[in-house]
Amino acid sequence: MTFATIADVEAALAASIAPDAEAIAQARARQAQLTKPPGSLGRLEEIAVFFAGWQGRARPRIGRGRVAVFAGNHGIVAHNVSAFPAAVTAQMVATFEHGGAAINALARAAGLDLKVVALDLDRPTADFTTAPAMTEAECLAALSAGAATVEAGLDLLVLGEMGIGNTTAAAALCARSLGGDGSTWVGPGTGIDDAGIARKVAVVDRAIAHHADAPMTAFETLRRVGGREIAAIAGAVLRARELRVPVLLDGFICCSAVAPLAAAAPASIAHCLAGHCSAEPGHARLLAALGLEPILQLDMRLGEASGAAVAAGVVRAALAAHDGMATFTEAGVSGAG
Amino acid sequence: MTFATIADVEAALAASIAPDAEAIAQARARQAQLTKPPGSLGRLEEIAVFFAGWQGRARPRIGRGRVAVFAGNHGIVAHNVSAFPAAVTAQMVATFEHGGAAINALARAAGLDLKVVALDLDRPTADFTTAPAMTEAECLAALSAGAATVEAGLDLLVLGEMGIGNTTAAAALCARSLGGDGSTWVGPGTGIDDAGIARKVAVVDRAIAHHADAPMTAFETLRRVGGREIAAIAGAVLRARELRVPVLLDGFICCSAVAPLAAAAPASIAHCLAGHCSAEPGHARLLAALGLEPILQLDMRLGEASGAAVAAGVVRAALAAHDGMATFTEAGVSGAG
Repeated sequence: MTFATIADVEAALAASIAPDAEAIAQARARQAQLTKPPGSLGRLEEIAVFFAGWQGRARPRIGRGRVAVFAGNHGIVAHNVSAFPAAVTAQMVATFEHGGAAINALARAAGLDLKVVALDLDRPTADFTTAPAMTEAECLAALSAGAATVEAGLDLLVLGEMGIGNTTAAAALCARSLGGDGSTWVGPGTGIDDAGIARKVAVVDRAIAHHADAPMTAFETLRRVGGREIAAIAGAVLRARELRVPVLLDGFICCSAVAPLAAAAPASIAHCLAGHCSAEPGHARLLAALGLEPILQLDMRLGEASGAAVAAGVVRAALAAHDGMATFTEAGVSGAG
Repeated sequence: MTFATIADVEAALAASIAPDAEAIAQARARQAQLTKPPGSLGRLEEIAVFFAGWQGRARPRIGRGRVAVFAGNHGIVAHNVSAFPAAVTAQMVATFEHGGAAINALARAAGLDLKVVALDLDRPTADFTTAPAMTEAECLAALSAGAATVEAGLDLLVLGEMGIGNTTAAAALCARSLGGDGSTWVGPGTGIDDAGIARKVAVVDRAIAHHADAPMTAFETLRRVGGREIAAIAGAVLRARELRVPVLLDGFICCSAVAPLAAAAPASIAHCLAGHCSAEPGHARLLAALGLEPILQLDMRLGEASGAAVAAGVVRAALAAHDGMATFTEAGVSGAG
């Protein structure tokens, strides 16, 4: 277990880990010499410099890139907060394993391997309107399961999730970490109607009230109103930082998993980029609160790391330009006059 | 010569060519059965259906995709409208040919071949503030050079350009095709200062006034205030439509090449998607006027098809998901309930 105790989580949050300043300076110097007007590749240049810093190389690359998708089930589905039955979580995990889901096709297209981790699907979390979603041991196990998908030598980690009911947990995580209430953060998820949204808002507000006196730590927030797949994402993010692996976050739920981390220690997500802004309304608000600018805005709202996997293609393009272009001197091209 | 006479251009503009309605219907039916909530892949679903229509296949693919980059020189550089000397056009063409430019790296990353066509770089167009940029024969030759880069069997055509001074021509094309004046469409291009922008605005306004009495046809607009690389893009777009090859347009200049076509016959660009919205301020306005929603917004402003080549990766992802995913029935997953 990477996270055997709560103190291990606190230590990971507080660790002083920064990108490699020399690699960043070298990457910036290289960008200034490439055959293009300064800044004309826009966000691609920033992405290349970001990867240089976290990979510690002036010319970063994606040799080994991984998608990790975590799945969990949620006690709050008893409140009828999803358009789909809870059995779909296990069915979709089987689809991931048989290669027929969107993330299988998108991971292949992006040249990334795919790890799917189903977390105790037959033991949903507790209904968090009346109890913590997980015991301390359960939450530590989920964080550790996430951490176990990250290893030294990965050049990129793309994170995502599957879990019927988990936009409700995501909204509760945002409200507890960043303020606001159910109405601030709840949206239609996979497609519930207005009455369903009203039920979700009420569930979130009851949860926030029920846990109001609990400590406002990242661990307690994840444990009380999160879910196993969400805690696993948080654990993977903390472990990736320790190993200096840059991370692409997916949609609303994936980003909600890092909201408690960012609230406790903003630097703990400095190695993360937002792959996209999803159509779930809370996501744009969440990204703004986290200070993350999405790479893509394609009205996607599937989860399972799908948006971040598409963004991985943009990252590949950014690194290909950074590495493959000639300098003005190599090409014999006149500079701006 | 695909376009031997002006009548050939008029005929291509007026041709009645539509996407394959049956392939669209089949692609939509397939999307509805894939293992995801309806619409949850957002823009990726629309892109897959668009490509299905133009390729005439329910499951479109990019086997053979091409980037075509056209280069030309401009008489209006005498008015000091660019931050770079005109010699850079030929230097960048040499860089394309040696493989050291951004588009070389980005085309490779997207799995596309690259055709570079330099159009009479030693004979710049005429200064269009006092004369048409091109003779009729020169404009027909440029249109035909563009058409010659398109062949049956291409699954995707990505278009771009290189030409010192050509954001000034692009602004004039937009003003003449869509209304507004120099101040509506002029921006900093590769990076001129405020005084340079004022010079560009004045050049565009003088050009529009000079050619005000000329016929408002697509051909006359391209010939009078365009450039060879711009006319070549227009020719490639018209030929691609005839061959039902879907097109990804690049930035402000590339899109300005189709503004005269769209103004004359909106359906003539129905097979085109906007790869990205560039940082050049006129581009967002131009895309809105053309009714095109950009796939990417990454603050790129390099030209040479760079933004559209990055967008080709998103198209590949869209087609990979459309083709590779299982249906609910195949996967045994419960539908929305």
